[in-house]
Amino acid sequence: MKKVKIEAYFKKRREIVERALSRCLPGDRSSVSRAMRYSVLSGGKRIRPILCLASCDAVGGGWRKALGPACSIELVHTYSLIHDDLPCMDDDDFRRGKPTCHRKFGEAVAVLAGDALLAHAFSLISGSRSLSDEIARKAAAELSKASGPSYLIAGQAADLAAEEKPLKSVKELEGIHMRKTAALIAASVKIGALCGGASKEDLRAIERYGWSVGLAFQVVDDLLDATGSKKKLGKAVRKDAALGKATYPALLGIEKSKQIAFSLRERAINALKGFDRKADPLRLIAEYLTTRTS
Amino acid sequence: MKKVKIEAYFKKRREIVERALSRCLPGDRSSVSRAMRYSVLSGGKRIRPILCLASCDAVGGGWRKALGPACSIELVHTYSLIHDDLPCMDDDDFRRGKPTCHRKFGEAVAVLAGDALLAHAFSLISGSRSLSDEIARKAAAELSKASGPSYLIAGQAADLAAEEKPLKSVKELEGIHMRKTAALIAASVKIGALCGGASKEDLRAIERYGWSVGLAFQVVDDLLDATGSKKKLGKAVRKDAALGKATYPALLGIEKSKQIAFSLRERAINALKGFDRKADPLRLIAEYLTTRTS
Repeated sequence: MKKVKIEAYFKKRREIVERALSRCLPGDRSSVSRAMRYSVLSGGKRIRPILCLASCDAVGGGWRKALGPACSIELVHTYSLIHDDLPCMDDDDFRRGKPTCHRKFGEAVAVLAGDALLAHAFSLISGSRSLSDEIARKAAAELSKASGPSYLIAGQAADLAAEEKPLKSVKELEGIHMRKTAALIAASVKIGALCGGASKEDLRAIERYGWSVGLAFQVVDDLLDATGSKKKLGKAVRKDAALGKATYPALLGIEKSKQIAFSLRERAINALKGFDRKADPLRLIAEYLTTRTS
Repeated sequence: MKKVKIEAYFKKRREIVERALSRCLPGDRSSVSRAMRYSVLSGGKRIRPILCLASCDAVGGGWRKALGPACSIELVHTYSLIHDDLPCMDDDDFRRGKPTCHRKFGEAVAVLAGDALLAHAFSLISGSRSLSDEIARKAAAELSKASGPSYLIAGQAADLAAEEKPLKSVKELEGIHMRKTAALIAASVKIGALCGGASKEDLRAIERYGWSVGLAFQVVDDLLDATGSKKKLGKAVRKDAALGKATYPALLGIEKSKQIAFSLRERAINALKGFDRKADPLRLIAEYLTTRTS
């Protein structure tokens, strides 16, 4: 697949994910339900669910099997953004070019909408009819681990702590990025592979791919914060620098950071060397994610 | 079992639950982990996990099977208290006689500790070795439904909304209490019964018991807020009245509210009429919960 193809692929998969997300959310007029829909259906890139479906394809499963879990991952991702944006956390006013959830619905509703998305994510997995009990349980285990105290939460907590006591080493920063970003991306591909019936060996390879691509994604995010525009990104930029936050560009400079992103991409693609052409979308996504401009 | 016996029973079961809770929480020194332990291990009554274990016993399962899920329910309960106490929600300074989580650790850590407890609850269920895949999946489905947008969250959202637009009818108030309190209590006994291998019929009876006992519990909570002391309850009292919040005593008076609690207790006990003496603890818990003074 060439560039034009990966974009068509993304567009098609994004449409599938959007429809599924809209279906899986409550449709009543309560403020919490409206806040959930507002934040989830606000035009995200849908990287994680698309990776989940692509990973299910790569191991020879049909992507449809992974659609419920793919949505659950996006709900967890959205919940984490809503809570990260709160005044007591990063205090952000814009996200994807629109007012953040608490700016639109108030803080109490934003906290509850985040909570509801996290709980609902596990309803989607346990209620997913395409999965056996064994796979549903394993998928729930992966998702809860990635979003729990050892990964997503530890990453966000360390990120907040770093605002007060700046990090000095790339090693520390890598630790935060791995927990805050890469863990959920690794879980996305692992869950997709589980849904597709992957062998243990394939599962391990897919997981290596996920960690590398996940870290690369965050390094590129740091780069975009340093070099991108608010218009293109839909959120405040240079915020990291303003907060004195450690980022890859701040610690290593722009060029070196780009090199790291590229070498992580190579590592991700190498992890897939035992896979046939069904893993091409995963390979191209790795490329796309490291050359993206928004 | 007489009163002295139910108290000894509670003490013993509480010890079992306390030890299991301590074991299941992360033990590192990060602020989020410390906040999780602080809030969970602060001497709650452990009603929900004890009900879960008693329900497992009542259907003829050994309570040990239900210990992981019982802890997961208490984590969900604690997460909901931490978030409800936040300044943007009920803005409470004390809980169980100690500063609330955000008063002790700051708002950001309190939000994250709540989030981490919710995610970790699902790790406990999916990782519980005593459960088959089928039961683990059903238990996760029950817990996520009870803690998700249709129940716990909807109840809390309606509760907040009622501060601005006072409720007029008991029916509305009952709806809030059912979703905010009774749903998680019903889930506790249902999950216990699932872990114990209950038949469909027993499961339905246990669920009826749970909803009645859950609503009774909240009516008594309203009564204690109206008549109890801060010293005994470990939290602010008369808060409902100060906020102009609808409660059973405010809408119906103290005597009528007591009658309702008693008749709910009868309904709960009647639901168990097909059960043998193994359900005695559930019967006595229903009695205990409606005559408690703290």
